[in-house]
Amino acid sequence: MSGLDDNWFTEIYPEESSAFSLRIRGRVHAEQSPYQSISIYETATFGYLMAIDGCVMLSTRDNFLYHEMMAHPVLFTHRNPRRVAIIGGGDCGTLREVLRHDGVEEVWQAEIDQRVTELSEQWFPELCEANEDPRANFFFGDGIKWIQDTDPGYFDVIIIDSTDPVGPAEGLFTKDFYRDCHMALGENGLMVQQTESPLMEGPKSIIRKAHEDMKAAGYHHSKTLVFPQPVYPTGWWSCTIAGKVTPLEHFREADAGARPFPTRYYSADVHRGALATPPFLQDIIGEDHPVGGEG
Amino acid sequence: MSGLDDNWFTEIYPEESSAFSLRIRGRVHAEQSPYQSISIYETATFGYLMAIDGCVMLSTRDNFLYHEMMAHPVLFTHRNPRRVAIIGGGDCGTLREVLRHDGVEEVWQAEIDQRVTELSEQWFPELCEANEDPRANFFFGDGIKWIQDTDPGYFDVIIIDSTDPVGPAEGLFTKDFYRDCHMALGENGLMVQQTESPLMEGPKSIIRKAHEDMKAAGYHHSKTLVFPQPVYPTGWWSCTIAGKVTPLEHFREADAGARPFPTRYYSADVHRGALATPPFLQDIIGEDHPVGGEG
Repeated sequence: MSGLDDNWFTEIYPEESSAFSLRIRGRVHAEQSPYQSISIYETATFGYLMAIDGCVMLSTRDNFLYHEMMAHPVLFTHRNPRRVAIIGGGDCGTLREVLRHDGVEEVWQAEIDQRVTELSEQWFPELCEANEDPRANFFFGDGIKWIQDTDPGYFDVIIIDSTDPVGPAEGLFTKDFYRDCHMALGENGLMVQQTESPLMEGPKSIIRKAHEDMKAAGYHHSKTLVFPQPVYPTGWWSCTIAGKVTPLEHFREADAGARPFPTRYYSADVHRGALATPPFLQDIIGEDHPVGGEG
Repeated sequence: MSGLDDNWFTEIYPEESSAFSLRIRGRVHAEQSPYQSISIYETATFGYLMAIDGCVMLSTRDNFLYHEMMAHPVLFTHRNPRRVAIIGGGDCGTLREVLRHDGVEEVWQAEIDQRVTELSEQWFPELCEANEDPRANFFFGDGIKWIQDTDPGYFDVIIIDSTDPVGPAEGLFTKDFYRDCHMALGENGLMVQQTESPLMEGPKSIIRKAHEDMKAAGYHHSKTLVFPQPVYPTGWWSCTIAGKVTPLEHFREADAGARPFPTRYYSADVHRGALATPPFLQDIIGEDHPVGGEG
């Protein structure tokens, strides 16, 4: 007996044979949208929790880790990001972080399921506080089709803020989609994608596949950054940045350090630290790491 | 219903109202030692799991994260560590990592519960593979008393590799114990302690208390390092290093990069990254982090 009764929300990670649970006060909303089942729970200590098809998407308490790391590293790597696209990201948390950058002139959020955004406005209003910003634009529909219809070279940065690579988001983890993004990006364009936990699945990791697919799609550089995220499997997560021409180890470190907006997790030092790829992850990705001579 | 039946081991974290579960093939050992209840489980994907009083201590699969980070950062910060003490650490994983350093001449492991070490030899033999090293010495008994009886200034590094600050380990999280360690350390002495998850408990965190107690015990420097650890609450963990005189941001980076032994998580870059304190953790500890001017 696990000791967990009806007062707990549990997500089982079948491939890991592990599970994460939060004590809940109750389920405050549940619906079947045209695309997926969406539930909102009030938890005991993590605030509100959104689950899609039974998988945790975000909690009030710890989403800042993910959203800051999906937005700021890539934006402080591009030399002058003005036009940004977010594919997915329906909870608007990434959008809010992107809009903190004064140089950004136009952001598009292309989310397939409008209900995710409407429920986020209701239950996670703090994430939606920038939705009225005149720079923010919303498209609800198929992000793959939408990026294909974008004028070539239009965007400086594309952020793929998707669910896991099963169901509606599966097509976002493909070489073809990365190539469509490549076309939609300007000459210094950068793309970033959430790439699951480096501690799951070992060499079969989607991280390795992401690097291979990004290179095959024409990007010259790719780099995985790591960060904590308690409500996701293993508690440790990653995003992978791809660059057409920009080396990703060199970011605008002075600008990041002097950012004129508050963050809770992100800083220039944290950004630099997230670029440190541990040896086991270098093995997964296929990077070199000679013993006795890394420096 | 959580969907977790008898085939799962679950640890509930009461203060967090969260829980972590692993699917098990069975419990392969259980006993009540003079100090605590110790269980060993065979899990589906994490190898063997040791639990003490129901709390996960380590798994075969992911203990490398914790053990490497408890040993290598502090040893690569001390300019020339020759004598090392480990308080707790009965599974011998930290001992193995310490002994990878050729300059280390003598290590003492002071573990209160000999059964932890004996069970580790049986179920985690890879962690005990250095136990026969002539530099390794074992004391089974009260680590607090033992450190008080140590010749003043004897050790270069003391590693406090303990269970949570309840039960047998409570006395290891006190100003008095830190002062005893201060006495046992040489003039460039360093101490490191596991300090739980930075994502738990917010300002009440034991991390803040550790820094305050370390300063009160006479250490001039203290620094928290962060790293992932899936089987511990939130999946993100920390250790806090205290130094008598040595600034902890400056470590032997070239030596760490040229280390002549394999690691899976630790590297010079990972060490540097672990020193990056996110703004929310600076708030907990009480460090300065002016917005718009961290650089």
